[in-house]
Amino acid sequence: MSFKGDHILSVSQFDRDNIQHVFQIARSMQPYASRQKRTKVLEGAILGNLFFEPSTRTRVSFGCAFNLLGGEVRETTGMESSALSKGESLFDTARVISSYSDVIAMRHPQSGSVAEFALGSRVPVINGGDGANEHPTQALLDLFTIERELAGSGLTIDGMHIAMVGDLKFGRTVHSLSKLLALYKDVRFTLIAPKELAMPDDIISAIENAGHQVHITEVLEGNVNADIVYQTRIQEERFPSKDEANLYRGKFRLNQEIYTKYCKSNTVIMHPLPRDSRAEANELDNDLNLNPNLAIFRQADNGILVRMALFALTLGVENILTNYECAVPWYSNKHSG
Amino acid sequence: MSFKGDHILSVSQFDRDNIQHVFQIARSMQPYASRQKRTKVLEGAILGNLFFEPSTRTRVSFGCAFNLLGGEVRETTGMESSALSKGESLFDTARVISSYSDVIAMRHPQSGSVAEFALGSRVPVINGGDGANEHPTQALLDLFTIERELAGSGLTIDGMHIAMVGDLKFGRTVHSLSKLLALYKDVRFTLIAPKELAMPDDIISAIENAGHQVHITEVLEGNVNADIVYQTRIQEERFPSKDEANLYRGKFRLNQEIYTKYCKSNTVIMHPLPRDSRAEANELDNDLNLNPNLAIFRQADNGILVRMALFALTLGVENILTNYECAVPWYSNKHSG
Amino acid sequence: MSFKGDHILSVSQFDRDNIQHVFQIARSMQPYASRQKRTKVLEGAILGNLFFEPSTRTRVSFGCAFNLLGGEVRETTGMESSALSKGESLFDTARVISSYSDVIAMRHPQSGSVAEFALGSRVPVINGGDGANEHPTQALLDLFTIERELAGSGLTIDGMHIAMVGDLKFGRTVHSLSKLLALYKDVRFTLIAPKELAMPDDIISAIENAGHQVHITEVLEGNVNADIVYQTRIQEERFPSKDEANLYRGKFRLNQEIYTKYCKSNTVIMHPLPRDSRAEANELDNDLNLNPNLAIFRQADNGILVRMALFALTLGVENILTNYECAVPWYSNKHSG
Repeated sequence: MSFKGDHILSVSQFDRDNIQHVFQIARSMQPYASRQKRTKVLEGAILGNLFFEPSTRTRVSFGCAFNLLGGEVRETTGMESSALSKGESLFDTARVISSYSDVIAMRHPQSGSVAEFALGSRVPVINGGDGANEHPTQALLDLFTIERELAGSGLTIDGMHIAMVGDLKFGRTVHSLSKLLALYKDVRFTLIAPKELAMPDDIISAIENAGHQVHITEVLEGNVNADIVYQTRIQEERFPSKDEANLYRGKFRLNQEIYTKYCKSNTVIMHPLPRDSRAEANELDNDLNLNPNLAIFRQADNGILVRMALFALTLGVENILTNYECAVPWYSNKHSG
Repeated sequence: MSFKGDHILSVSQFDRDNIQHVFQIARSMQPYASRQKRTKVLEGAILGNLFFEPSTRTRVSFGCAFNLLGGEVRETTGMESSALSKGESLFDTARVISSYSDVIAMRHPQSGSVAEFALGSRVPVINGGDGANEHPTQALLDLFTIERELAGSGLTIDGMHIAMVGDLKFGRTVHSLSKLLALYKDVRFTLIAPKELAMPDDIISAIENAGHQVHITEVLEGNVNADIVYQTRIQEERFPSKDEANLYRGKFRLNQEIYTKYCKSNTVIMHPLPRDSRAEANELDNDLNLNPNLAIFRQADNGILVRMALFALTLGVENILTNYECAVPWYSNKHSG
Repeated sequence: MSFKGDHILSVSQFDRDNIQHVFQIARSMQPYASRQKRTKVLEGAILGNLFFEPSTRTRVSFGCAFNLLGGEVRETTGMESSALSKGESLFDTARVISSYSDVIAMRHPQSGSVAEFALGSRVPVINGGDGANEHPTQALLDLFTIERELAGSGLTIDGMHIAMVGDLKFGRTVHSLSKLLALYKDVRFTLIAPKELAMPDDIISAIENAGHQVHITEVLEGNVNADIVYQTRIQEERFPSKDEANLYRGKFRLNQEIYTKYCKSNTVIMHPLPRDSRAEANELDNDLNLNPNLAIFRQADNGILVRMALFALTLGVENILTNYECAVPWYSNKHSG
């Protein structure tokens, strides 16, 4: 099983076996991410980090993951300043930029653009989000987090209960995650959304056809006694207008009081981040920051591990990481964190 | 005395003793900055360079200082493209980004924002300027420059005479520098500013309470026979309107003729840069470029040394720099510069 | 013959001898660019990559070229965020930023700006394009490509026939390339442009005075049976208005049908890229992508080699590259590409 030289464009490339392989490599990245030691296996390699749509968090996560393997990062942000605005095709851009790089991570506002780009690329392309379509690294890090968090309670993805909350229509992370979860057995889905932002029918069918239970509701209270609650953000940028987005902002809020009343004692809270902490939204109240089951920051941390794994796999260095290890001579308190 | 793991948020963290420690480490950085040799003590370490407000000079200075110690830099510039504009709290941003980095340098337009950010950070945060509030690395490099320049004339900060010129109200660099100078003995301050842009009362009180002399005036001529003249720029971005800024632009100009007439023969000229060289401002005339006492570029160069020192100290590598030294095989004429 | 410590500002710095020297070094970069091995001769060196005008391709090409030699890159993009917008002179910017770097690559919208900047710089400055004036690295990579492509057919630049097509007035790449070609012998130029976008008289005179033949026409058909066809893009940003640019967009289109009918069987097609592939422009049809004589991507790839050569030469490491060689442990399919 190998991803050497492959593009990572869609969650549909994954099955349970190769997911476990990615996760095993991701776990082996922990000592580097927590600075117990470092590896310079990719010293001299270049990541082309192409963000034609802004996303600080994902961009920096890809960049740091590559740095943590010893590589260099060349970045492009924004659309205006790029040749694309001068009428260049994605094929041409890919053909040229891929000549300068060893691997490319790319985000673009348009559905399908990353796959189109990959056709022209001479090096592996990792999809960092293409509009409302796919965001496979987010789905993988979400799944990785679910597996890790449940393991703490002796649970597995097979047989678990997940409640997805908020914008299930435009939120591509819940779409991609649902497709991955469908690969497992006997998952119970509770989908909590306003009717207008309901999970698309094709995804519900796919889940049901794979033998899972789906419960659909518009009410948060009484429906979050799940193993995982996956909260989402109203993403203004996916809505036709800001006004329409505002109709739904703040509709579902989770705080410690609701948690105590309606969740299990070990319900894990997830969120793809950023969470909207403005008063009118407040999707996840800050009073949950003290709740040990708030997994949102561990989830973000896991993103580094999963992205490191995907770089190592597509560049075929997953088995030689330790040959390039060095000590970390600077102070860090991350070992314990 | 150690800064290992500490945030550097304010000049109030410093006293004469730890300032001397920072300066001693800064001096030890000179051979690396002038390319006589290099050190890779921070090879594999990652600086998160977060500039939510543009400042090319300070951003590049932090980035290069980190590169000169062997480390990698991941950058974010601008506000719009960041999660903050999607309602994310500074705490969340800090918690996530700090997981990706070993140390963070941050500039933000809002007073107090960097300290707020530091509360959520898992790694040391260095304040690169938070609105009108603080800019401690600038104050330290200014003080370092004053000490170095005076030493050439056999003078010390104790007992010196400094004239500060221009916008002393919004110019945070003169505020921070004044607080540091107050730690020394018998400093004579001449504050030259339009009444509307006068040094704030609390800072004047602090200086006077520490036993220093303060002379306040609105006239440049006859008042610059000091050891140091610290000229400032009218910073449009700190004024309520551009029109108001324009009222004061160009009010105090220093050129070689005025220097010859009113300054001492060895008066050192400083400026936090950028200096506004447009005809309507012309704070420091280009004819001063030939004056050996124009210290503004040495001042900028010192910024690298001081920032290298702060990175080395907060990451606890100040005593092992030489263990990671290598030769510089490429051509450089900086050795002599 | 050495460029050590030199600025690279204009094609007028080059003669046939030092061009051949640059090209010899450029060819020696091939194994690093195609990942057969790597060199870290510039490990610890810093490139200041200053793009005051957007140009993703050129910016990334300079950055990657420097990374491929082992160096670090600190970048600045855009004008607004820079000190220049606060009234700083190019001299001051140069003096400060050059202190932070070992070499600088710079693009700026204003003619002559890069040369002015170089006056203040303490390190070599490479012109990455200054408005309508010069773009010497593009001219060199074009010439390098012509020599390489012709060699495949047993031809040389001496005695060849080149057709330049499109905007020959604002297109600085054809100006700079023409000046370099004028150094060779018996070159035949066919200049195909609308009268309003004709090649400037001074360049035509220079070519003719050097003993070359010039044929001027407004018609593509029947005039492209040359050894090289150099197609250009209508660069909106160089025209007084978008409307004026639109008058000429799509005026000359080359596709496989026209190629078959009017070109030689081995006519090499070049373009400085990006090519405008929108229907209204379509300067080079995508059906040419299968034509082995379409050299536009090899041309872009050659840009890396030429820029690596210029960095190596200005930093004086062109003879010690192999002393710093290492293996490439990660997967790459570029060896064969």
